[in-house]
Amino acid sequence: MKTPLHYLIAARQSEIAELEQISRASTLVASMSELVHALQKERGLSNIFLVSSGALAQQALLAHGQHVDQVMGRVCVVLEELGERSPGAHGARLFNSIANALQGFEALPQLRHQRDALQLSAEDCMQALIRIIAACLTVVYEAADSACDPDIAKLLVALFHFMQGKELAGQERATGVAAFTQGISKAERQRHWLHLIESQDGCFQVFADFASPQGVERWQQQCGACTDMTVIERLRRIGCTAADGAPLDKALSSPWFEACSSRLDAMHQIEAFLAQELQAQCLCKLELSGAALSQQQALLETLPEPLVRAESGVAFILGTAQGAALPAEGVYGRQLGKSIVGLVQEQAARLQDMQTEIDKARSTLKERKTIERAKGVLMNYRQLGEGDAYKLIRQTAMNQNRRMLDVAEAILATVDLLPCSTNS
Amino acid sequence: MKTPLHYLIAARQSEIAELEQISRASTLVASMSELVHALQKERGLSNIFLVSSGALAQQALLAHGQHVDQVMGRVCVVLEELGERSPGAHGARLFNSIANALQGFEALPQLRHQRDALQLSAEDCMQALIRIIAACLTVVYEAADSACDPDIAKLLVALFHFMQGKELAGQERATGVAAFTQGISKAERQRHWLHLIESQDGCFQVFADFASPQGVERWQQQCGACTDMTVIERLRRIGCTAADGAPLDKALSSPWFEACSSRLDAMHQIEAFLAQELQAQCLCKLELSGAALSQQQALLETLPEPLVRAESGVAFILGTAQGAALPAEGVYGRQLGKSIVGLVQEQAARLQDMQTEIDKARSTLKERKTIERAKGVLMNYRQLGEGDAYKLIRQTAMNQNRRMLDVAEAILATVDLLPCSTNS
Repeated sequence: MKTPLHYLIAARQSEIAELEQISRASTLVASMSELVHALQKERGLSNIFLVSSGALAQQALLAHGQHVDQVMGRVCVVLEELGERSPGAHGARLFNSIANALQGFEALPQLRHQRDALQLSAEDCMQALIRIIAACLTVVYEAADSACDPDIAKLLVALFHFMQGKELAGQERATGVAAFTQGISKAERQRHWLHLIESQDGCFQVFADFASPQGVERWQQQCGACTDMTVIERLRRIGCTAADGAPLDKALSSPWFEACSSRLDAMHQIEAFLAQELQAQCLCKLELSGAALSQQQALLETLPEPLVRAESGVAFILGTAQGAALPAEGVYGRQLGKSIVGLVQEQAARLQDMQTEIDKARSTLKERKTIERAKGVLMNYRQLGEGDAYKLIRQTAMNQNRRMLDVAEAILATVDLLPCSTNS
Repeated sequence: MKTPLHYLIAARQSEIAELEQISRASTLVASMSELVHALQKERGLSNIFLVSSGALAQQALLAHGQHVDQVMGRVCVVLEELGERSPGAHGARLFNSIANALQGFEALPQLRHQRDALQLSAEDCMQALIRIIAACLTVVYEAADSACDPDIAKLLVALFHFMQGKELAGQERATGVAAFTQGISKAERQRHWLHLIESQDGCFQVFADFASPQGVERWQQQCGACTDMTVIERLRRIGCTAADGAPLDKALSSPWFEACSSRLDAMHQIEAFLAQELQAQCLCKLELSGAALSQQQALLETLPEPLVRAESGVAFILGTAQGAALPAEGVYGRQLGKSIVGLVQEQAARLQDMQTEIDKARSTLKERKTIERAKGVLMNYRQLGEGDAYKLIRQTAMNQNRRMLDVAEAILATVDLLPCSTNS
C-alpha cells in the first residue's frame, strides 16, 4: 500500500503537469501577441488601401502580408505542439478557442483576395479583421483562465488586459483614420471613439493591478516618454469635440495614423517584455517545483516505511496542532526539518492560498467577460451602440449603488425573460 | 496543418479525459461514504466502551473493527487506481487531501490499541475519530471542487453536504450519549448540541438545493417515515432545555443511541443511493461525450479538407451571426445538419454555460469552507466554542445586512491585522 508520502508526491507531480501545460500555453500566448500585432498592422494598411480606393499602401500590404503569414506559421507550430500533449484543466475551452481562431486564420486568404479586388468596404474589412483578432485574444483569455499558478495567472491576466487595451487602441486608430479621411465629424462615431478611449484606460488599469512592478514601471516610463501621446491627445480632442456634421481637416489623417502606429509599436515592445517575463516565470516555477519534488522523492527513498506510518498516527491522535509540533524530536526532523504530517499540512495550506489567489485573478477575467456579454445583450435588445450599452450598465450600477458586475449578471440572468430580440 | 475540426475534437477529448478523472474520483467518493459510515459506528461503539470503562461493547468493537479494515482496504484499492492515472484539474489538492486521509487511516491501529487498553479518554478518542472522518470528508470536498461537468458537480456538492450533515448527526449522537451517560446537563455542551442541530439542517438544505429530484424525494420520504425522529426530537428537547447542572435521566442514553444509530443507518442508505446516482451520471456523460466525439471524428474523415477551410473563411468575413446561418446551403449541412463554424460556436456556448453552472456549485462549496475557516479564526482569537463563533458571524451579518460569506471573508482578510492569538 502507498504511504501518505506517495500521495504528497503525486500532488506535486500533478502541479508540475499543470505547470508544464500552462508553460506551453504561455508560449502560445507569446506567439499570439506577435500575430495580433501583425494583424493590427495589416488592418491599418488595409484601411488606408481601401479608403484610398487602392491608390495607397498596395506595396506595403503585399510585403506585410508575407510577414503576417510567417508569424501565423510560427503560431501554428506552437499549436501543433500544444495539441499533441494531454490537455490540462479547462483544456476543452482552450482547444475550442483555438478551433475558433484557426477558422479566423483560414478566412484571411479569401479576405485579402476580396480586399485586393476592392470588393470589400473598408468597414467590412476592418470588422472581419477585428473578429479574427478577437478570436486570437480569446485564446489568450482562455489560457489565462486555465492557469493553475497564481503568479502565472496574474501575469497572464495582466498580459491579456494589455493586449486587449492595445487592440482597442488599434481600433481607435482606425476610427480616427476613418473620421479624418472622410473629413466629417459624426456624433455616433464620436461616441464610439470616446468609448474606445475609456475602455482602453480600463484595460490598462487592470493590467497595472496584476502586472509585476517591472512591467508596470516599463509601461509608466513609456507613457511618460511618449511624445506621440501629445499628438494623439490633441487629435482626439479635435476629433471628439467637433459638432455633428462639422468638417474635419483631412490632412490630420496622416499624423494621426503615424502617432497611433508609433504608439502601438511601443506597446508591442512592452507586450514582448511581458511575454518574456511570463515565460521566465513559468520556467522558474517549474524549476522550484521540480526541486521540491526531488526532495520529496529522496525522502521517500531514505525513510523506512514503518516510521512514516507510525509518525502519522501520533499526529492524528494528538490532533493536528500538536502533530505539527512533533518534528523537532522526530526522525524526519533531522532529515528535512519537518515531519511528513507537517509537509502535508504545509502543502494543503499552500494549495489553499494558491487557489484563493487564482480565484481572485479569474474573477477579474470573469467580470470582464460578464460585462461584455451583458453589453451584447443590451446592444441586441435595445439596438444600442457598444459605448451606449456600456454607459447604460455603468449608470444603472451607479443609480442602484451596485457593482457593474452585479448589474451585468442581473441582465444575463433575466435575458430569457425578455421579449425576443429583433435580430433573432 | 490541423484544421479547426481537429481542435474541436481535441476539446472534446479533453472533456472526456476530465470526465474519466471525475468518474474515478466518484468511485472513490462512493467507497469513502462506506468508510465514513463504518468509522462513525466505530466512534459510537468506542464511546460506549470508554464511557463504561470497558464493560460494554468490547465484542462488538472487535467485530466491527474488522469490518472497518475491510472497507478501508477497498478504499485503498480505489486510491491505488486513482494514483496511477494522470491527474486532472485540481489534481494537486485532491492528492494532498488523500495523503492527509491516509495519515488518518494509519493512526487507527495505534488509536485502537490505546483505546482497548483504556489509555484514552472517551473525549480524546472521539476527537481523534472526528479528525480521521473529517480527513475523509475533505477528499469528497476536493473531488466535488474538481468536477468539470456541472451535473456531476451538483450531485457531488449534494452528496458532500449530505455526508457532512450525517457526520454532524453522528457527532450529535455522541454529544447526547455523553450528556445522558454523565447524567448532568451542562450549558456549554447544550450550546454545542444546538449548534450541531442547526448545522445539520444547513447541510441538508444545501443538499436539497443541489440533489436530483429523486434524491430529494428519497430524503423527504425517509424524514416523513422515520419514527426515530420522534424519539430524537423528544430527547433533544430534554437534553437541550435542562438547566445548567440539572440531572439527566441516565436511562435515556440507550434509547437516544438506538434512535440516532437507526437514523444514521437510514441516512447511509440515502448516501448509497446518491453515490449510485453519481456513478450512473458519470457513465451517462461519458457515453454521450463519446458518441459526440465519434460523430466529430467521422466528420473529420469524410469531409474534404479544402471545403472545411473555405467554409470557415466565409463565416469569418461575413461575421459570426451570418456565419451561423450558413449550414442550410453548405456541404456539411447535409451531413451533420450544421457547419463546422456552427459546431465551434455551439461548443463554445455549451462550455461557457457549463462553466457558469460549475462556478455556482463551486461557490457553494467555497462558502462553506470560508465560513468554516472564519469560525476557526474566531474560536482561536476569541476563545469561543464552535457554535458561538458561528452565531457571532451570523449575528454580524444580520446587523450589517450582509451575507455570512462576506463577513467570513472580511474576517479572513483582516486576520493578519489582529493581535497574535493566545494559542500560537
